[in-house]
Amino acid sequence: MKSLGLVGLGQFGQLAARHLKTHFDVVVTDSAADAQARASELGVRFSALEEVARCEIVVVAVPVVAMRAVFEGIAPHLQTGALVIDVGSVKMLPVQWMGELLPPHVNLVATHPLFGPQSARNGLAGLRFVVCPVRGDRHETVAAFGRSLGLTVTVTTAEEHDREMAYVQALTHLIGRSLVNIGIPDEQLKTPSYQHLLELCGLIGADTFELFTAIQTQNPYAAEVVTAFVEEARGLLEQVGHTRPKS
Amino acid sequence: MKSLGLVGLGQFGQLAARHLKTHFDVVVTDSAADAQARASELGVRFSALEEVARCEIVVVAVPVVAMRAVFEGIAPHLQTGALVIDVGSVKMLPVQWMGELLPPHVNLVATHPLFGPQSARNGLAGLRFVVCPVRGDRHETVAAFGRSLGLTVTVTTAEEHDREMAYVQALTHLIGRSLVNIGIPDEQLKTPSYQHLLELCGLIGADTFELFTAIQTQNPYAAEVVTAFVEEARGLLEQVGHTRPKS
Repeated sequence: MKSLGLVGLGQFGQLAARHLKTHFDVVVTDSAADAQARASELGVRFSALEEVARCEIVVVAVPVVAMRAVFEGIAPHLQTGALVIDVGSVKMLPVQWMGELLPPHVNLVATHPLFGPQSARNGLAGLRFVVCPVRGDRHETVAAFGRSLGLTVTVTTAEEHDREMAYVQALTHLIGRSLVNIGIPDEQLKTPSYQHLLELCGLIGADTFELFTAIQTQNPYAAEVVTAFVEEARGLLEQVGHTRPKS
Repeated sequence: MKSLGLVGLGQFGQLAARHLKTHFDVVVTDSAADAQARASELGVRFSALEEVARCEIVVVAVPVVAMRAVFEGIAPHLQTGALVIDVGSVKMLPVQWMGELLPPHVNLVATHPLFGPQSARNGLAGLRFVVCPVRGDRHETVAAFGRSLGLTVTVTTAEEHDREMAYVQALTHLIGRSLVNIGIPDEQLKTPSYQHLLELCGLIGADTFELFTAIQTQNPYAAEVVTAFVEEARGLLEQVGHTRPKS
Protein backbone atom coordinates (compact mmCIF):
# COMPACT_ATOMS: atom_id res chain seq x y z
CA MET A 1 0.00 0.00 0.00
CA LYS A 2 1.16 3.53 -0.76
CA SER A 3 1.96 5.76 2.19
CA LEU A 4 -0.58 8.53 2.80
CA GLY A 5 0.01 11.39 5.22
CA LEU A 6 -3.09 13.16 6.50
CA VAL A 7 -2.70 16.63 8.02
CA GLY A 8 -5.73 17.49 10.14
CA LEU A 9 -8.09 15.35 12.24
CA GLY A 10 -11.09 17.64 12.40
CA GLN A 11 -14.60 16.47 11.43
CA PHE A 12 -13.63 15.86 7.81
CA GLY A 13 -10.15 14.53 8.56
CA GLN A 14 -11.65 11.86 10.83
CA LEU A 15 -14.14 10.85 8.12
CA ALA A 16 -11.29 10.72 5.58
CA ALA A 17 -9.10 8.60 7.87
CA ARG A 18 -11.90 6.05 8.30
CA HIS A 19 -12.32 5.64 4.53
CA LEU A 20 -8.64 5.89 3.51
CA LYS A 21 -7.08 3.51 6.02
CA THR A 22 -8.23 0.41 4.13
CA HIS A 23 -6.60 1.66 0.89
CA PHE A 24 -3.37 3.30 2.15
CA ASP A 25 -0.75 3.06 4.86
CA VAL A 26 -2.11 6.11 6.70
CA VAL A 27 -0.16 8.32 9.11
CA VAL A 28 -1.79 11.41 10.59
CA THR A 29 -0.84 14.60 12.38
CA ASP A 30 -2.81 17.41 14.02
CA SER A 31 -1.83 20.11 16.51
CA ALA A 32 -4.92 19.63 18.73
CA ALA A 33 -4.27 18.43 22.29
CA ASP A 34 -6.43 15.31 21.87
CA ALA A 35 -5.19 14.45 18.36
CA GLN A 36 -3.18 11.37 19.39
CA ALA A 37 -6.21 9.98 21.20
CA ARG A 38 -8.38 10.61 18.14
CA ALA A 39 -5.85 8.83 15.90
CA SER A 40 -5.81 5.91 18.29
CA GLU A 41 -9.63 5.68 18.26
CA LEU A 42 -9.56 5.74 14.45
CA GLY A 43 -6.90 3.02 14.36
CA VAL A 44 -4.34 5.10 12.44
CA ARG A 45 -0.74 5.94 13.32
CA PHE A 46 0.06 9.43 14.66
CA SER A 47 3.35 11.19 13.88
CA ALA A 48 5.03 14.57 13.47
CA LEU A 49 4.33 16.85 10.49
CA GLU A 50 7.79 16.10 9.06
CA GLU A 51 7.10 12.37 8.70
CA VAL A 52 3.58 12.91 7.40
CA ALA A 53 4.99 15.27 4.75
CA ARG A 54 7.42 12.59 3.50
CA CYS A 55 4.59 10.25 2.37
CA GLU A 56 3.91 9.45 -1.29
CA ILE A 57 0.53 11.15 -0.96
CA VAL A 58 -0.11 14.09 1.41
CA VAL A 59 -3.72 15.09 2.10
CA VAL A 60 -4.20 18.51 3.71
CA ALA A 61 -7.50 18.47 5.62
CA VAL A 62 -7.20 21.62 7.73
CA PRO A 63 -9.49 24.67 7.61
CA VAL A 64 -8.69 26.95 4.66
CA VAL A 65 -7.60 29.66 7.11
CA ALA A 66 -4.83 27.34 8.37
CA MET A 67 -3.84 25.93 4.97
CA ARG A 68 -1.16 28.45 4.01
CA ALA A 69 0.83 27.68 7.14
CA VAL A 70 0.51 23.91 6.53
CA PHE A 71 1.78 24.26 2.95
CA GLU A 72 4.77 26.23 4.29
CA GLY A 73 5.33 23.58 6.96
CA ILE A 74 5.29 20.56 4.63
CA ALA A 75 7.13 22.19 1.67
CA PRO A 76 10.72 21.40 2.81
CA HIS A 77 9.91 17.72 3.48
CA LEU A 78 7.96 16.75 0.30
CA GLN A 79 9.55 13.98 -1.77
CA THR A 80 10.11 14.21 -5.55
CA GLY A 81 7.04 12.88 -7.35
CA ALA A 82 4.83 13.14 -4.26
CA LEU A 83 1.18 14.14 -4.65
CA VAL A 84 -0.30 16.90 -2.49
CA ILE A 85 -4.10 17.14 -2.25
CA ASP A 86 -6.23 19.62 -0.34
CA VAL A 87 -9.89 19.12 0.60
CA GLY A 88 -10.89 22.74 1.27
CA SER A 89 -14.43 23.94 0.63
CA VAL A 90 -13.20 26.77 -1.59
CA LYS A 91 -10.71 26.18 -4.38
CA MET A 92 -9.22 29.39 -5.85
CA LEU A 93 -7.23 30.39 -2.76
CA PRO A 94 -5.78 26.90 -1.98
CA VAL A 95 -4.81 26.46 -5.65
CA GLN A 96 -3.01 29.82 -5.59
CA TRP A 97 -1.19 28.97 -2.33
CA MET A 98 -0.18 25.45 -3.43
CA GLY A 99 1.26 26.84 -6.67
CA GLU A 100 3.23 29.53 -4.83
CA LEU A 101 4.45 27.56 -1.81
CA LEU A 102 5.01 23.93 -2.87
CA PRO A 103 8.15 22.89 -4.77
CA PRO A 104 7.97 22.17 -8.53
CA HIS A 105 8.95 18.50 -8.02
CA VAL A 106 5.53 17.60 -6.48
CA ASN A 107 2.19 16.98 -8.17
CA LEU A 108 -0.79 19.05 -7.05
CA VAL A 109 -4.50 18.28 -7.08
CA ALA A 110 -7.17 20.43 -5.42
CA THR A 111 -10.39 18.72 -4.35
CA HIS A 112 -13.66 19.49 -2.64
CA PRO A 113 -15.68 16.64 -1.15
CA LEU A 114 -19.22 18.10 -1.08
CA PHE A 115 -20.14 16.09 1.99
CA GLY A 116 -19.30 15.71 5.64
CA PRO A 117 -19.96 13.37 8.56
CA GLN A 118 -23.75 14.10 8.45
CA SER A 119 -24.36 13.53 4.74
CA ALA A 120 -21.94 10.57 4.65
CA ARG A 121 -23.46 8.80 7.65
CA ASN A 122 -25.16 6.28 5.32
CA GLY A 123 -22.10 5.77 3.11
CA LEU A 124 -20.38 7.59 0.27
CA ALA A 125 -22.43 6.32 -2.67
CA GLY A 126 -23.64 9.15 -4.89
CA LEU A 127 -22.04 11.96 -2.88
CA ARG A 128 -20.24 14.56 -4.98
CA PHE A 129 -16.48 14.98 -5.17
CA VAL A 130 -14.95 17.86 -7.15
CA VAL A 131 -11.43 17.47 -8.54
CA CYS A 132 -9.44 20.42 -9.94
CA PRO A 133 -6.19 19.73 -11.85
CA VAL A 134 -3.39 22.00 -10.59
CA ARG A 135 0.05 20.59 -11.53
CA GLY A 136 0.77 17.25 -13.27
CA ASP A 137 -1.81 14.68 -14.38
CA ARG A 138 -2.50 12.90 -11.08
CA HIS A 139 -6.03 14.39 -10.98
CA GLU A 140 -7.00 11.46 -13.20
CA THR A 141 -5.89 8.95 -10.53
CA VAL A 142 -7.65 10.96 -7.82
CA ALA A 143 -10.89 11.08 -9.86
CA ALA A 144 -10.71 7.33 -10.54
CA PHE A 145 -10.15 6.62 -6.82
CA GLY A 146 -13.17 8.79 -5.95
CA ARG A 147 -15.31 6.87 -8.41
CA SER A 148 -14.08 3.56 -6.96
CA LEU A 149 -15.50 4.72 -3.60
CA GLY A 150 -18.90 5.31 -5.21
CA LEU A 151 -18.56 9.10 -5.31
CA THR A 152 -19.97 11.18 -8.17
CA VAL A 153 -16.83 12.92 -9.48
CA THR A 154 -16.77 16.25 -11.33
CA VAL A 155 -13.49 17.52 -12.80
CA THR A 156 -13.56 21.31 -13.21
CA THR A 157 -11.54 24.48 -12.65
CA ALA A 158 -11.12 26.24 -9.31
CA GLU A 159 -12.80 29.36 -10.78
CA GLU A 160 -15.90 27.49 -12.00
CA HIS A 161 -16.08 25.61 -8.67
CA ASP A 162 -16.02 28.81 -6.61
CA ARG A 163 -18.54 30.56 -8.91
CA GLU A 164 -21.05 27.71 -8.45
CA MET A 165 -20.30 27.32 -4.75
CA ALA A 166 -21.20 30.94 -4.09
CA TYR A 167 -24.78 29.75 -4.64
CA VAL A 168 -24.56 26.11 -3.60
CA GLN A 169 -22.63 26.69 -0.36
CA ALA A 170 -22.50 30.33 0.68
CA LEU A 171 -26.24 30.85 0.19
CA THR A 172 -27.38 27.54 1.73
CA HIS A 173 -25.10 28.00 4.75
CA LEU A 174 -26.26 31.58 5.30
CA ILE A 175 -29.95 30.59 5.14
CA GLY A 176 -29.50 27.39 7.13
CA ARG A 177 -27.45 29.04 9.87
CA SER A 178 -29.87 31.97 10.15
CA LEU A 179 -32.80 29.54 10.51
CA VAL A 180 -30.96 27.46 13.12
CA ASN A 181 -30.00 30.59 15.07
CA ILE A 182 -33.56 31.96 15.22
CA GLY A 183 -34.69 28.47 16.26
CA ILE A 184 -37.36 27.50 13.71
CA PRO A 185 -39.77 25.00 15.28
CA ASP A 186 -40.96 21.68 13.80
CA GLU A 187 -44.57 22.83 13.41
CA GLN A 188 -47.53 20.45 13.16
CA LEU A 189 -49.03 22.39 10.22
CA LYS A 190 -45.93 22.13 8.05
CA THR A 191 -46.00 22.25 4.25
CA PRO A 192 -43.58 20.64 1.77
CA SER A 193 -41.90 24.10 1.47
CA TYR A 194 -41.32 24.32 5.23
CA GLN A 195 -40.08 20.73 5.28
CA HIS A 196 -37.32 21.84 2.88
CA LEU A 197 -36.22 24.51 5.41
CA LEU A 198 -36.26 22.00 8.29
CA GLU A 199 -34.17 19.53 6.28
CA LEU A 200 -31.72 22.29 5.33
CA CYS A 201 -31.29 23.02 9.06
CA GLY A 202 -30.68 19.33 9.73
CA LEU A 203 -27.93 19.20 7.10
CA ILE A 204 -26.17 22.42 8.15
CA GLY A 205 -26.96 22.76 11.85
CA ALA A 206 -23.86 20.95 13.15
CA ASP A 207 -21.30 22.75 10.96
CA THR A 208 -18.81 24.98 12.75
CA PHE A 209 -18.72 28.77 12.59
CA GLU A 210 -15.16 28.37 11.30
CA LEU A 211 -16.48 26.52 8.23
CA PHE A 212 -19.24 29.12 7.81
CA THR A 213 -16.68 31.94 7.89
CA ALA A 214 -14.43 30.12 5.41
CA ILE A 215 -17.29 29.54 2.98
CA GLN A 216 -18.41 33.17 3.19
CA THR A 217 -15.04 34.91 3.09
CA GLN A 218 -12.65 32.69 1.17
CA ASN A 219 -14.74 32.33 -1.96
CA PRO A 220 -14.26 35.52 -4.01
CA TYR A 221 -17.78 35.21 -5.49
CA ALA A 222 -19.66 34.59 -2.20
CA ALA A 223 -20.10 38.12 -0.86
CA GLU A 224 -21.98 39.32 -3.93
CA VAL A 225 -24.44 36.41 -3.92
CA VAL A 226 -25.26 36.35 -0.20
CA THR A 227 -25.49 40.14 0.02
CA ALA A 228 -27.87 40.15 -2.96
CA PHE A 229 -30.08 37.62 -1.16
CA VAL A 230 -30.21 39.58 2.10
CA GLU A 231 -30.83 42.87 0.25
CA GLU A 232 -33.62 41.23 -1.75
CA ALA A 233 -35.25 39.88 1.43
CA ARG A 234 -34.97 43.30 3.12
CA GLY A 235 -36.42 44.96 0.02
CA LEU A 236 -39.39 42.58 0.02
CA LEU A 237 -40.05 43.27 3.71
CA GLU A 238 -39.88 47.00 3.03
CA GLN A 239 -42.35 46.57 0.15
CA VAL A 240 -44.87 44.98 2.52
CA GLY A 241 -44.23 47.59 5.20
CA HIS A 242 -42.10 45.54 7.62
CA THR A 243 -39.37 47.96 8.55
CA ARG A 244 -38.00 48.69 11.96
CA PRO A 245 -35.42 51.11 13.23
CA LYS A 246 -31.87 49.79 12.93
CA SER A 247 -29.68 49.83 15.99
CA MET B 1 -76.95 17.83 -4.18
CA LYS B 2 -76.65 20.84 -1.88
CA SER B 3 -76.20 24.22 -3.51
CA LEU B 4 -72.73 25.72 -3.09
CA GLY B 5 -71.91 29.31 -4.01
CA LEU B 6 -68.24 30.07 -4.69
CA VAL B 7 -67.08 33.68 -4.54
CA GLY B 8 -63.77 34.09 -6.37
CA LEU B 9 -62.28 32.30 -9.38
CA GLY B 10 -58.59 33.05 -8.83
CA GLN B 11 -55.96 30.28 -8.80
CA PHE B 12 -57.41 28.63 -5.71
CA GLY B 13 -61.07 29.26 -6.64
CA GLN B 14 -60.56 27.44 -9.93
CA LEU B 15 -58.93 24.49 -8.17
CA ALA B 16 -61.83 24.42 -5.67
CA ALA B 17 -64.46 24.55 -8.43
CA ARG B 18 -62.88 21.55 -10.17
CA HIS B 19 -62.99 19.45 -6.99
CA LEU B 20 -66.36 20.68 -5.62
CA LYS B 21 -68.50 20.43 -8.74
CA THR B 22 -68.86 16.64 -8.48
CA HIS B 23 -70.15 16.92 -4.89
CA PHE B 24 -72.31 20.07 -5.01
CA ASP B 25 -74.53 22.09 -7.31
CA VAL B 26 -71.91 24.82 -7.78
CA VAL B 27 -72.61 28.41 -8.83
CA VAL B 28 -69.74 30.89 -8.99
CA THR B 29 -69.16 34.63 -9.15
CA ASP B 30 -66.10 36.82 -9.61
CA SER B 31 -65.69 40.47 -10.62
CA ALA B 32 -62.84 39.79 -13.10
CA ALA B 33 -63.59 40.60 -16.77
CA ASP B 34 -62.91 37.02 -17.91
CA ALA B 35 -64.69 35.32 -15.00
CA GLN B 36 -67.67 34.07 -17.05
CA ALA B 37 -65.28 32.49 -19.57
CA ARG B 38 -63.34 30.84 -16.72
CA ALA B 39 -66.56 29.45 -15.25
CA SER B 40 -67.55 28.10 -18.64
CA GLU B 41 -64.16 26.39 -19.06
CA LEU B 42 -64.56 24.85 -15.61
CA GLY B 43 -68.07 23.65 -16.43
CA VAL B 44 -69.75 25.54 -13.58
CA ARG B 45 -72.61 28.05 -13.69
CA PHE B 46 -71.84 31.77 -13.33
CA SER B 47 -74.21 34.16 -11.59
CA ALA B 48 -74.45 37.41 -9.63
CA LEU B 49 -73.18 37.71 -6.02
CA GLU B 50 -76.77 37.87 -4.73
CA GLU B 51 -77.66 34.41 -6.08
CA VAL B 52 -74.34 32.90 -4.98
CA ALA B 53 -74.95 34.24 -1.47
CA ARG B 54 -78.34 32.51 -1.27
CA CYS B 55 -76.80 28.99 -1.51
CA GLU B 56 -76.84 26.51 1.37
CA ILE B 57 -73.04 26.69 1.50
CA VAL B 58 -71.09 29.83 0.55
CA VAL B 59 -67.31 29.50 0.03
CA VAL B 60 -65.36 32.77 0.01
CA ALA B 61 -62.18 32.26 -2.04
CA VAL B 62 -61.01 35.82 -2.57
CA PRO B 63 -57.71 37.35 -1.38
CA VAL B 64 -57.81 38.25 2.32
CA VAL B 65 -57.49 41.93 1.38
CA ALA B 66 -60.84 41.68 -0.49
CA MET B 67 -62.61 39.49 2.05
CA ARG B 68 -64.14 42.18 4.25
CA ALA B 69 -65.98 43.69 1.27
CA VAL B 70 -67.24 40.24 0.20
CA PHE B 71 -68.60 39.51 3.69
CA GLU B 72 -70.42 42.87 3.60
CA GLY B 73 -71.73 42.06 0.11
CA ILE B 74 -73.10 38.62 0.93
CA ALA B 75 -74.43 39.40 4.45
CA PRO B 76 -77.92 40.69 3.42
CA HIS B 77 -78.57 37.64 1.18
CA LEU B 78 -77.48 34.75 3.42
CA GLN B 79 -80.22 32.23 4.27
CA THR B 80 -81.00 31.03 7.81
CA GLY B 81 -78.89 27.95 8.57
CA ALA B 82 -76.47 28.61 5.71
CA LEU B 83 -72.78 27.80 6.14
CA VAL B 84 -70.14 30.38 5.24
CA ILE B 85 -66.56 29.17 4.78
CA ASP B 86 -63.45 31.14 3.92
CA VAL B 87 -60.21 29.69 2.54
CA GLY B 88 -57.80 32.52 3.37
CA SER B 89 -54.15 31.80 4.12
CA VAL B 90 -54.36 33.65 7.44
CA LYS B 91 -57.13 32.98 9.94
CA MET B 92 -57.35 35.54 12.77
CA LEU B 93 -58.48 38.47 10.59
CA PRO B 94 -61.10 36.54 8.54
CA VAL B 95 -62.51 35.00 11.74
CA GLN B 96 -62.82 38.47 13.30
CA TRP B 97 -64.51 39.91 10.18
CA MET B 98 -66.93 36.98 9.77
CA GLY B 99 -67.99 37.29 13.39
CA GLU B 100 -68.55 41.03 13.07
CA LEU B 101 -70.18 41.22 9.63
CA LEU B 102 -72.21 38.04 9.08
CA PRO B 103 -75.70 37.63 10.65
CA PRO B 104 -76.16 35.38 13.70
CA HIS B 105 -78.46 33.01 11.75
CA VAL B 106 -75.56 31.57 9.67
CA ASN B 107 -72.92 29.02 10.63
CA LEU B 108 -69.28 30.00 10.23
CA VAL B 109 -66.18 27.87 9.59
CA ALA B 110 -62.73 29.26 8.75
CA THR B 111 -60.37 27.05 6.77
CA HIS B 112 -56.94 27.11 5.24
CA PRO B 113 -56.09 24.62 2.50
CA LEU B 114 -52.27 24.41 2.73
CA PHE B 115 -51.93 23.73 -0.99
CA GLY B 116 -52.50 25.32 -4.34
CA PRO B 117 -52.57 24.39 -8.03
CA GLN B 118 -48.85 23.43 -8.00
CA SER B 119 -48.84 21.16 -4.96
CA ALA B 120 -52.25 19.67 -5.90
CA ARG B 121 -51.30 18.90 -9.51
CA ASN B 122 -50.98 15.19 -8.64
CA GLY B 123 -54.18 15.05 -6.57
CA LEU B 124 -55.26 16.02 -3.08
CA ALA B 125 -54.18 12.91 -1.16
CA GLY B 126 -52.14 13.77 1.93
CA LEU B 127 -52.31 17.56 1.48
CA ARG B 128 -53.11 19.49 4.63
CA PHE B 129 -56.39 21.25 5.33
CA VAL B 130 -56.82 23.35 8.48
CA VAL B 131 -60.31 23.84 9.90
CA CYS B 132 -61.09 26.42 12.60
CA PRO B 133 -64.51 26.34 14.33
CA VAL B 134 -66.06 29.85 14.42
CA ARG B 135 -69.84 29.67 14.98
CA GLY B 136 -72.00 26.51 15.17
CA ASP B 137 -70.78 22.92 14.86
CA ARG B 138 -70.53 22.59 11.07
CA HIS B 139 -66.73 22.45 11.29
CA GLU B 140 -67.22 18.73 11.95
CA THR B 141 -68.95 18.27 8.57
CA VAL B 142 -66.30 20.36 6.83
CA ALA B 143 -63.48 18.32 8.42
CA ALA B 144 -65.19 15.04 7.44
CA PHE B 145 -65.65 16.26 3.85
CA GLY B 146 -61.94 17.20 3.69
CA ARG B 147 -60.98 13.73 4.91
CA SER B 148 -63.29 12.15 2.30
CA LEU B 149 -61.23 13.97 -0.37
CA GLY B 150 -58.03 12.41 1.03
CA LEU B 151 -56.84 15.59 2.76
CA THR B 152 -55.02 15.50 6.09
CA VAL B 153 -57.29 17.60 8.29
CA THR B 154 -56.20 19.54 11.38
CA VAL B 155 -58.81 21.23 13.55
CA THR B 156 -57.30 24.11 15.53
CA THR B 157 -57.82 27.72 16.57
CA ALA B 158 -57.21 30.75 14.36
CA GLU B 159 -54.57 31.98 16.84
CA GLU B 160 -52.59 28.72 16.86
CA HIS B 161 -52.85 28.55 13.05
CA ASP B 162 -51.44 32.04 12.57
CA ARG B 163 -48.68 31.48 15.12
CA GLU B 164 -47.46 28.37 13.29
CA MET B 165 -47.96 29.92 9.86
CA ALA B 166 -45.64 32.81 10.71
CA TYR B 167 -42.88 30.18 10.36
CA VAL B 168 -44.44 27.75 7.89
CA GLN B 169 -45.68 30.37 5.42
CA ALA B 170 -44.24 33.83 6.05
CA LEU B 171 -40.67 32.55 6.37
CA THR B 172 -40.79 30.07 3.46
CA HIS B 173 -42.41 32.64 1.15
CA LEU B 174 -39.87 35.31 2.09
CA ILE B 175 -36.93 32.98 1.47
CA GLY B 176 -38.42 31.41 -1.68
CA ARG B 177 -39.37 34.74 -3.23
CA SER B 178 -35.98 36.28 -2.45
CA LEU B 179 -34.23 33.30 -4.09
CA VAL B 180 -36.50 33.45 -7.15
CA ASN B 181 -35.93 37.21 -7.49
CA ILE B 182 -32.13 36.98 -7.37
CA GLY B 183 -32.38 34.14 -9.90
CA ILE B 184 -30.57 31.20 -8.27
CA PRO B 185 -29.21 28.87 -10.97
CA ASP B 186 -29.60 25.08 -11.17
CA GLU B 187 -25.89 24.40 -10.68
CA GLN B 188 -24.15 21.20 -11.72
CA LEU B 189 -22.29 20.92 -8.40
CA LYS B 190 -25.42 21.02 -6.26
CA THR B 191 -25.67 19.46 -2.82
CA PRO B 192 -28.75 18.06 -1.05
CA SER B 193 -28.93 21.40 0.85
CA TYR B 194 -29.02 23.42 -2.37
CA GLN B 195 -31.58 21.02 -3.84
CA HIS B 196 -33.88 21.99 -0.94
CA LEU B 197 -33.59 25.67 -1.97
CA LEU B 198 -34.27 24.86 -5.63
CA GLU B 199 -37.35 22.82 -4.70
CA LEU B 200 -38.58 25.62 -2.43
CA CYS B 201 -38.33 27.97 -5.44
CA GLY B 202 -40.30 25.51 -7.56
CA LEU B 203 -43.09 25.36 -4.99
CA ILE B 204 -43.33 29.12 -4.39
CA GLY B 205 -42.13 30.68 -7.67
CA ALA B 206 -45.56 30.97 -9.31
CA ASP B 207 -47.38 32.53 -6.34
CA THR B 208 -48.61 36.09 -6.74
CA PHE B 209 -47.21 39.14 -4.97
CA GLU B 210 -50.74 39.67 -3.66
CA LEU B 211 -50.55 36.34 -1.81
CA PHE B 212 -47.03 37.18 -0.57
CA THR B 213 -48.24 40.52 0.80
CA ALA B 214 -51.25 38.88 2.45
CA ILE B 215 -49.10 36.24 4.13
CA GLN B 216 -46.62 38.83 5.39
CA THR B 217 -49.01 41.55 6.53
CA GLN B 218 -52.25 39.86 7.54
CA ASN B 219 -50.78 37.40 10.00
CA PRO B 220 -50.15 39.31 13.24
CA TYR B 221 -47.18 37.03 14.12
CA ALA B 222 -45.41 37.18 10.72
CA ALA B 223 -43.49 40.45 10.98
CA GLU B 224 -41.57 39.37 14.06
CA VAL B 225 -40.48 36.02 12.60
CA VAL B 226 -39.40 37.24 9.14
CA THR B 227 -37.68 40.32 10.55
CA ALA B 228 -35.77 38.12 13.01
CA PHE B 229 -34.60 35.95 10.11
CA VAL B 230 -33.39 38.88 8.01
CA GLU B 231 -31.69 40.52 11.01
CA GLU B 232 -29.97 37.22 11.85
CA ALA B 233 -28.72 36.84 8.26
CA ARG B 234 -27.47 40.45 8.22
CA GLY B 235 -25.78 39.90 11.56
CA LEU B 236 -24.01 36.78 10.29
CA LEU B 237 -22.78 38.66 7.21
CA GLU B 238 -21.53 41.47 9.44
CA GLN B 239 -19.71 38.92 11.61
CA VAL B 240 -17.82 37.64 8.57
CA GLY B 241 -17.12 41.17 7.34
CA HIS B 242 -19.65 41.36 4.47
CA THR B 243 -21.07 44.83 4.92
CA ARG B 244 -21.66 47.43 2.28
CA PRO B 245 -22.92 50.97 2.44
CA LYS B 246 -26.71 51.16 2.42
CA SER B 247 -28.36 53.33 -0.21
